[in-house]
Amino acid sequence: MTTYVRDFSQGNKDQKDLLGGKGANLAEMTNLGLPVPPGFTITTEACRAFLVAGHEPDGLDGEVDRHLRGLEDRMGRRLGDPDDPLLVSVRSGAKFSMPGMMETVLDVGLNDASVVGLARQSGDARFAADSYRRLLQMFGTTVLGIDGAAFSDRMDAGDLLDVDELRDVIADFKETIRTHTGADFPQDPREQLRQAIRAVFASWHTPRATLYRRHEQIPDDLGTAVNVQAMVFGNRGTASGSGVCFTRDPATGAPGAYGDYLPDAQGEDVVAGIRNTLALTDLAALHPACHAQLLAAMARLERHYRDLCDIEFTIEDGRLWLLQTRIGKRTPEAAVRVAADLVDEGLIDLDEALGRVGGQQLAALMFPRFLPDPDRVAAARGMSASPGAAVGRAVLDSATAVEWAARGEDVVLVRKETTPDDLPGMVAARGILTSRGGKTSHAAVVARGMGRTCVCGADAIEIDVDARCFRVRGGPVVQEGDVISVDGGTGEVFLGSVAVGESLVARGLAGGPVDDPTARAAARLLGHADTRRRLAVRANADTPDDARLARALGAQGIGLCRTEHMFLGERRALVEALIVASEASDRDAALARLLPLQRQDFTEILAAMDGLPVTVRLIDPPLHEFLPDLTDLSVQVALEDERHVADERGHLLLAAVRRLHETNPMLGLRGVRLGIVVPGLFAMQARALAEATADRVAAGGDPRPELMVPLVATERELLLVREQLEQVIGDVERERGVRLSIPIGTMIELPRAAVTADRIALAADFFSFGTNDLTQTTWGFSRDDVESEFVQDYLDQGVVATSPFESIDVDGVGELVRTGVRLGRQARPGLHMGVCGEHGGDPQSIHFFDDVGLDYVSCSPYRVPVARWEAGRSALGSQRRADELARTFASDHPVLAGVD
Amino acid sequence: MTTYVRDFSQGNKDQKDLLGGKGANLAEMTNLGLPVPPGFTITTEACRAFLVAGHEPDGLDGEVDRHLRGLEDRMGRRLGDPDDPLLVSVRSGAKFSMPGMMETVLDVGLNDASVVGLARQSGDARFAADSYRRLLQMFGTTVLGIDGAAFSDRMDAGDLLDVDELRDVIADFKETIRTHTGADFPQDPREQLRQAIRAVFASWHTPRATLYRRHEQIPDDLGTAVNVQAMVFGNRGTASGSGVCFTRDPATGAPGAYGDYLPDAQGEDVVAGIRNTLALTDLAALHPACHAQLLAAMARLERHYRDLCDIEFTIEDGRLWLLQTRIGKRTPEAAVRVAADLVDEGLIDLDEALGRVGGQQLAALMFPRFLPDPDRVAAARGMSASPGAAVGRAVLDSATAVEWAARGEDVVLVRKETTPDDLPGMVAARGILTSRGGKTSHAAVVARGMGRTCVCGADAIEIDVDARCFRVRGGPVVQEGDVISVDGGTGEVFLGSVAVGESLVARGLAGGPVDDPTARAAARLLGHADTRRRLAVRANADTPDDARLARALGAQGIGLCRTEHMFLGERRALVEALIVASEASDRDAALARLLPLQRQDFTEILAAMDGLPVTVRLIDPPLHEFLPDLTDLSVQVALEDERHVADERGHLLLAAVRRLHETNPMLGLRGVRLGIVVPGLFAMQARALAEATADRVAAGGDPRPELMVPLVATERELLLVREQLEQVIGDVERERGVRLSIPIGTMIELPRAAVTADRIALAADFFSFGTNDLTQTTWGFSRDDVESEFVQDYLDQGVVATSPFESIDVDGVGELVRTGVRLGRQARPGLHMGVCGEHGGDPQSIHFFDDVGLDYVSCSPYRVPVARWEAGRSALGSQRRADELARTFASDHPVLAGVD
Repeated sequence: MTTYVRDFSQGNKDQKDLLGGKGANLAEMTNLGLPVPPGFTITTEACRAFLVAGHEPDGLDGEVDRHLRGLEDRMGRRLGDPDDPLLVSVRSGAKFSMPGMMETVLDVGLNDASVVGLARQSGDARFAADSYRRLLQMFGTTVLGIDGAAFSDRMDAGDLLDVDELRDVIADFKETIRTHTGADFPQDPREQLRQAIRAVFASWHTPRATLYRRHEQIPDDLGTAVNVQAMVFGNRGTASGSGVCFTRDPATGAPGAYGDYLPDAQGEDVVAGIRNTLALTDLAALHPACHAQLLAAMARLERHYRDLCDIEFTIEDGRLWLLQTRIGKRTPEAAVRVAADLVDEGLIDLDEALGRVGGQQLAALMFPRFLPDPDRVAAARGMSASPGAAVGRAVLDSATAVEWAARGEDVVLVRKETTPDDLPGMVAARGILTSRGGKTSHAAVVARGMGRTCVCGADAIEIDVDARCFRVRGGPVVQEGDVISVDGGTGEVFLGSVAVGESLVARGLAGGPVDDPTARAAARLLGHADTRRRLAVRANADTPDDARLARALGAQGIGLCRTEHMFLGERRALVEALIVASEASDRDAALARLLPLQRQDFTEILAAMDGLPVTVRLIDPPLHEFLPDLTDLSVQVALEDERHVADERGHLLLAAVRRLHETNPMLGLRGVRLGIVVPGLFAMQARALAEATADRVAAGGDPRPELMVPLVATERELLLVREQLEQVIGDVERERGVRLSIPIGTMIELPRAAVTADRIALAADFFSFGTNDLTQTTWGFSRDDVESEFVQDYLDQGVVATSPFESIDVDGVGELVRTGVRLGRQARPGLHMGVCGEHGGDPQSIHFFDDVGLDYVSCSPYRVPVARWEAGRSALGSQRRADELARTFASDHPVLAGVD
Repeated sequence: MTTYVRDFSQGNKDQKDLLGGKGANLAEMTNLGLPVPPGFTITTEACRAFLVAGHEPDGLDGEVDRHLRGLEDRMGRRLGDPDDPLLVSVRSGAKFSMPGMMETVLDVGLNDASVVGLARQSGDARFAADSYRRLLQMFGTTVLGIDGAAFSDRMDAGDLLDVDELRDVIADFKETIRTHTGADFPQDPREQLRQAIRAVFASWHTPRATLYRRHEQIPDDLGTAVNVQAMVFGNRGTASGSGVCFTRDPATGAPGAYGDYLPDAQGEDVVAGIRNTLALTDLAALHPACHAQLLAAMARLERHYRDLCDIEFTIEDGRLWLLQTRIGKRTPEAAVRVAADLVDEGLIDLDEALGRVGGQQLAALMFPRFLPDPDRVAAARGMSASPGAAVGRAVLDSATAVEWAARGEDVVLVRKETTPDDLPGMVAARGILTSRGGKTSHAAVVARGMGRTCVCGADAIEIDVDARCFRVRGGPVVQEGDVISVDGGTGEVFLGSVAVGESLVARGLAGGPVDDPTARAAARLLGHADTRRRLAVRANADTPDDARLARALGAQGIGLCRTEHMFLGERRALVEALIVASEASDRDAALARLLPLQRQDFTEILAAMDGLPVTVRLIDPPLHEFLPDLTDLSVQVALEDERHVADERGHLLLAAVRRLHETNPMLGLRGVRLGIVVPGLFAMQARALAEATADRVAAGGDPRPELMVPLVATERELLLVREQLEQVIGDVERERGVRLSIPIGTMIELPRAAVTADRIALAADFFSFGTNDLTQTTWGFSRDDVESEFVQDYLDQGVVATSPFESIDVDGVGELVRTGVRLGRQARPGLHMGVCGEHGGDPQSIHFFDDVGLDYVSCSPYRVPVARWEAGRSALGSQRRADELARTFASDHPVLAGVD
């Protein structure tokens, strides 16, 4: 027969599945001999049976009776005894922490008779009355489902009521219960307990708990355990109190106990922050014995759990009780530092230290951040598109940004959305803020590439460029030139200047001088990751500066050097000439003028990456992206016509824009299609790269370029382009009298390329999976459109757990990647394969790419350490463990443990 | 040791791989005892060896010598003998016919000496000189590679030259050869032969032959055979002549021999059409014995080949020689009629008859066509977007089309491109002509759905709506109201009226009264196909009229009833109200007014398809498609502002259009996403269908509706929508007190849906593959964009053999369909599956869908007979055979056999 109830002494910390996290840890502490109020745990199995059947499983009631009797015997008191009542708490406790999501009922066992006994035994009538009041309120809302507002009116005065007033409140609350339920508050303590247990079971399925689980990817069918524990009271006068403590500082990771204590209070009062707490050191003065006992317990627990623990404790009449412990939540700084310190202390090895800290936590440390300030209020909020913290004067166009930055001002570029024309302003600005667009809008992608702070889609902001200001909806008007602060990590926008802390971790990892324990710890663990990982890490970098930065951060080459950014700025006129050319000779002339500029780009990047591979992607976007927007230009030309100030050029340009306009540019004339349809374009780029390579060879360098063809769907496309490219490379070899080795590979970024990868492999020297575009086509999603339109709906409704543009969709897109890898290597064993695009820097995705056997990932420079880190963790085979720990650890902010 | 040369008597018709088509048929005729000039065939194997090695394979020369001696012995003359020379022709002949693509050299064996012997033996010095002149010219261009222009100057006068003049030309041509090659024309006959053979081998790799093969999907590595045959001369005076004949009329299929004869001429003169030919009946008067012998040979060949044959023949001095035979090319009419007639004549059975005629040929007979007229010249040409022939007055907008049609005029709607707003005009017009867009533009798709003739993307047409006219580039101006004729089968546009023939086949298959042998034959073979096929055929139909037509043409239900067309016309205002609604109540009001209209649509369609399934697809396109175009509206509002005539509504509408504007609408907020994000929309449609079903049940009907959810990527989307739909259906069941059976299925039209079909199957009652969208996403192609931009480039360069929107891309898109079928049935054995979309009516694709095990295809009404036909052929397992025959048969026009 199934056993549904376990005494604390019957369990241990590894039984979270059955006992929940809280129950398992209470059992562990009990068995360690620590002072835990006795009690028992009703298993998650009982909860699951209850949820399926709609009532308690057979035998549960009897088991509870038996364990309750045991508890009563141990405590020498009986539940709800009118003379000297045993009171119990009834708390939820699931396998995964779901703070505040499910129900708790305290003081079970009080009734009209036992409250008198409690008053007598405690010598504190007010305490007893207040406890009864608490029970009525908690039971009424939690167990009986009465709206909390029905109880709160009378309690606004809170602690200030005296005994008589409390008695009135008790009478009122009992009346409220009768009115709302048609029945009296149950005076039978055992019936109170039965209903409380049932309420905790049922709270598994409240909407907020369901939503939380969906959001945290916690399975819906686990159920919660229920812990029934003898009550101890921190609110029995000045010799009592409650506190929360950590074995190390959860904000910084610094060694040494850390905590808060509140005299004459229960645990929830500490968390609620009703009164100011005392520091743990003050406890030493108040209760030296308890303090010493607590420190010993903390040391014991940390050694036992081999990690930072947090502990809830209560002192009742000078006696210490431990009510809960668990692995403590901590900031990313603390996570890194604690892991390294525990290695030094001999508690864990480097593998375990690395396995415990997620790359996402390292990522959070790579950018400057605003110093903490709980009182700061955001004026607006958008999407955290590119991390970091930017403070500067708001400017409303690119030219102003460049101008003001040139005279030494820090500026933040504020735009409705950005276009390639805004690039100079984005380079000049400390940060970018847009009112439209998602995490993969132009602003977001470019900003991430540059490591520039960016918040996108802050839709409460209404920009009026003509009036040189923007209005925060329902808020103030910000004039151009006013200082604002933008938090790329949280998406918050603040008015005025916020203090910023530099990222010492980033400085340290890039080889700069740093004296900071977290930075040292990060470098040490990253070094260890490098010794473990199989996966190489390259960077996405389009400029010599980016290439140098990436190399400093440990990149083993460039996996994606986009060339479209090289066609902007002052070169735009040449590109425009190329596009609108009606004669082949005009087109050739424009290409001839672009050639030396492009060659110069490549020469510098090859120099910065000397000795390491540089994968150059041939131009990918549709050409009309280099021309003005159709709607804007149409309006402009129509108005010029109306005003009789039209010029011929406007009309010619409009004709070209109309001709090139595409209904779905993402699915139009781009990538390899340009190479086949537009004569000379790819050849010019290949020549520029080949000549740059020859120049580098002549200069004694060790250039290792690779040419990559985007958007290939069939082997024939690749063969046609390959023929062009090899021809050009051969020409340059003959002209320069050198032998150039430039492998030619392809992006696998269309579903068709993935399912025909065996044929494509025969024409490719390497594969690079472009999972951004592959996600768009596999899902039939346009990033630009869906992120602003319905990804939030989809997250809310649980259609997707995370945006497939953030972490690779393993079941769908991942299946195509697996197919591409399998077919490609089937046709050409050992074919070199990597991934470029945003997923290459995403921790969760990196494990997937390692598992499917890619050779490298490529990501933006500041993500390179993150990728090295995760590649190391992946090699440890720690995925499963990492997933479990992620739920316990992950948090970007210092968090005091809540009451579950 | 390999044998590279075979005498004609050593081969047979089944050895096309080795002997080529011409050689195999010459061998067959030889063995039948028919009068074939003797000769031998050098195998394709020799050619392949030559092409690989770059020279003749060892032993070939000796074999040719031996066979040549045998030929000389048989003819009693020696090659190039000065007194009585044997002359030979050297002709290519590959496995698959490649008319005019490769080389031929005639009169090999003539030189300065033998030309005298030939003159003496023939008694015709001019004939001998002209033959020598022909050899020099042909040898010079074909074997020696001299530009034809070097010879043509002197020959413009052609037949008019006398002997002396011809001798001058001969001297000139020899000089030309000497000048261009630095060597004399080879006087050695054996050397002439050697070089001629080599030239034929090499001609396999000429660019035009390579391009032809790529276009016809003929493998590149087959090589050609070479036929060396004793020359016979049809140009030796009035007792000689050449002709081409068919065993039946290749244009109509009518029984009885049919052919052309040209006295005193060689075969190429007949084909070139230099002089008017005589009919075959005239030959009876000129050469009664030859005529009788020819008729007997024709009868013999048709019985032997069991099919219509064409034959080239020459009469030399009153003696009949057969030079070539093959299965004759024929029109679609003839193909259908001949196949049925041969069944009646006991030569083939119905299976073989059906196997011989492709569905594409039946398709060509389903629409009215212009009567043939070789002199007619097209004024412009576009893409053949929807077949048929339309004659009417050109009108330049939808309203005019409706107005003029209402007063009884036939009109052709001429637009730059069409939008849903043009629908009334498209319905009113006989045909549609656009200057932009491809085969899957709005105009094309809608026209095909309606069976309306349409030519798209005729880019030589420049429309000036303001001036009410259009200009044909480099041609005339056509005023609105002028009559034009549009050929949807060829894409041609004619000025003025062209005579049209109705499709008797379509009339007959739809059950109308017809007395036409082809129509009877088509009905008979189609009936046979129905007895054979496994695959069911449904129609895509959105209106009651279409549903009735489809049913008359044999549809077994509706596989795709689009609902977006139901939101156009006068209902547009309601849709606009729905979209711009800012309050839920406004939105609900708009939906409530749409409900009864939508219900009425469904009721009529269910009535028309009573007893058969009707699959209704929930609304699919992005909502902004129902609003004005962003650019147009922006210009309009800007101009109104400029003129101070702006109204509030314009600005509100523009704001809504801007808000809903998408960068890539194909990949945006559409399909199931609308059902999740826009409250009440799908529910309204489901209620309309459920109520319509209840109404039909109440009226004693047998409605069989199905609900289909578009653009599903994950099972969760489908589950969320399914919940909504089941709720509504349940509500209607309770309200009406009936039990409704409405299966809920999904489109599989995204790569993600295909690779996760096992999960999606658990939430779906059926699958319908949407291969249009699946092709777009698998290739990363937008139909609208690529068809106008680069599909033609891709076809030209052999990247694709046919547009993947016409015939399913078996390797890429097909692989995903296979995956979807496999996973879907793995999860739910027996899951019902079909395909809707354009591929469902494409013959080649239908074989694929049959092979992968779909249950049905669905296509536009006029394609239903084609689909039934091909489904029957597919069931015969005749795919391989059909492919081979297609190359021999397929042609839309009567063709006289060319000389290969």
